[in-house]
Amino acid sequence: MERLYVLISNDDGITSQGLFALVNEIKQVADVVVVAPDSQKSAVSHAITVHNPLRVEPVEINGQFFGYAVNGTPADCVKLAVRNLLEKKPDIVISGINHGTNTSLNAIYSGTVSAAAEATLLDIPSFAISLATYKNEPDYSFAAKFAREFFNVFIENKLPEKTILNINVPAVKEEEIKGVKITKLNNSTWEDIYEERKDPQRKSYYWLTGKYIVGHKDNIYDDYAVQNNFISITPLQYDLTNHDFYSKISDWEINYFNKTNKN
Amino acid sequence: MERLYVLISNDDGITSQGLFALVNEIKQVADVVVVAPDSQKSAVSHAITVHNPLRVEPVEINGQFFGYAVNGTPADCVKLAVRNLLEKKPDIVISGINHGTNTSLNAIYSGTVSAAAEATLLDIPSFAISLATYKNEPDYSFAAKFAREFFNVFIENKLPEKTILNINVPAVKEEEIKGVKITKLNNSTWEDIYEERKDPQRKSYYWLTGKYIVGHKDNIYDDYAVQNNFISITPLQYDLTNHDFYSKISDWEINYFNKTNKN
Repeated sequence: MERLYVLISNDDGITSQGLFALVNEIKQVADVVVVAPDSQKSAVSHAITVHNPLRVEPVEINGQFFGYAVNGTPADCVKLAVRNLLEKKPDIVISGINHGTNTSLNAIYSGTVSAAAEATLLDIPSFAISLATYKNEPDYSFAAKFAREFFNVFIENKLPEKTILNINVPAVKEEEIKGVKITKLNNSTWEDIYEERKDPQRKSYYWLTGKYIVGHKDNIYDDYAVQNNFISITPLQYDLTNHDFYSKISDWEINYFNKTNKN
Repeated sequence: MERLYVLISNDDGITSQGLFALVNEIKQVADVVVVAPDSQKSAVSHAITVHNPLRVEPVEINGQFFGYAVNGTPADCVKLAVRNLLEKKPDIVISGINHGTNTSLNAIYSGTVSAAAEATLLDIPSFAISLATYKNEPDYSFAAKFAREFFNVFIENKLPEKTILNINVPAVKEEEIKGVKITKLNNSTWEDIYEERKDPQRKSYYWLTGKYIVGHKDNIYDDYAVQNNFISITPLQYDLTNHDFYSKISDWEINYFNKTNKN
C-alpha cells in the first residue's frame, strides 16, 4: 500500500516541542510535510490573513529540511499549503500537539482546532490533538504515540462532511491513562478576569486571565473525561446553521415594507 | 418601559461608516455603548488576545464621547466590555454593519459574526449584520434602518442557547429589496488563489484572492437569497459537537493498552 501523505500544522509555531513529537511518530507510518506558523498563534481561532501578504520560509533542523514556516495563522498554513506549497493534496491533516487543553468552549478559540477545521472545509479528513497541561515543557511522548496509534484507526474509518475529531490527552503518566472516551463538548465557561496594570507612563493595560469552570460532571463530556485521565475524542462539526431553530424562527413576524418573510 | 442597554461592536474598526450608521439608528430606540477594534480586523474569526495585553482608548466624535477603541479582536472587545468596561451587563449585543458579505463559510472566518458569538457565550442575545458589497464607501442607510426595525422584533422574541442571528442585507436600492428570508448557511466554497509576487529583494510573498462559488441555488440558502435581493437571516449555533455522529463514532474500535473506548 502506498504511504499516505499527511500535512501537519499547529498553532504553537514551527519550533514547538509538541509539533516535533507528533512529526516523529507520524513519519513512521506516513509521508509527512509540515507547514506551521512561524510564531506562537494560540487562540487565533479560524482567523485568515487577508489584509497582509503571507511569507513562507523553509526551515531546516540539523541540516535537514523540516517544513515551511508561514507568517500567518494555522488556517492560513493549511490553505496556503493545499493551494500552493504542496505538490499534491494531502490525504490527511493533523494539527498539534497543542500545548494546553482544547476542550469545551476552548475549541472555538483554538488555532489548533481551526487548522483541522480548515482542512475539512477543503474536504481533507483531519484531527486535532492537544495535551491537557499548561506546565512548561511537558512530556509529549505518550500523546504523540497515541496519535500514531490512532492514525491507523482514523484511516480505516470515515468522517461525515464538515466534521473533525478533537482529541485531548491527559498530561499524566502512561500507566495512569484509564482509556479512551468518545465525548461531547462540555458547557464549561471561563470566568474571565482582565487584570488591570499601569505602564511606566501610568497608562492602563489589561491582561486576560481567568478561572475555568467545568460544566457537566460526567465522563461523556470532554474536559471532565480528561480530568479523570481518559483520552477524550470529540467529533466537531462546522455546519453552524441551527437547523432545529430554523423552522421555529420562520414564525417570527418580520414584515418590512409589508413584505412577508414566509419562506 | 426602561430603554434597553445595547453594546455595539464590529470588525471593521471604530471609525467605520457601517458602525456609525448602525449606532445612529439603534440609539433612537435604545441606550447604546460602542466598544470596537481600533483598526480593521476582518477575517480574524473568534480570535482572542492572550499573549499581549489589551489597551483601551476613549474615542470622541465632534467633541462627544462615542465609544472605546480596543487594540484587539471583536471577541476581545465584547469580552472586555462585559467583564470590565461597562457599568452593567448589556441586554443585547449587535455587531456590524460589516463592509462585505458574511454568508456561508464566511461566517466561520468573520470577526463581525464572532463578536455576536462571543456575546452568546456570555449569555447575551445578539445578532450580526453585514452589507453584501465589497464596493468602497457603500450606502449603509437602508441596512441600518432595517437593523433598527428588526431590533424591535428581536427583543420581542427569544433565541435558543448559544444561538445568534446572522443578517446579510443586499446592497441595492430600498425599492429593489424583495423582502426577508429565513435561511441556512449555504455550502458555498472559495476557490482560493494565492497570488505570488516578488518584493524588491526578489523574495516571494503571497496575497490571498479567490473566487466565491455559490453552492445550492435556492433562496433557502443565505448567499443565494442575498443575490436575489432578499435580506437573509440565518440562525447560527455554537455547540460544535456533531451529536449525530457522536453515537456512530462510539462504534470505532480504539483500543489502546487493551482499554476499551466503550462509553
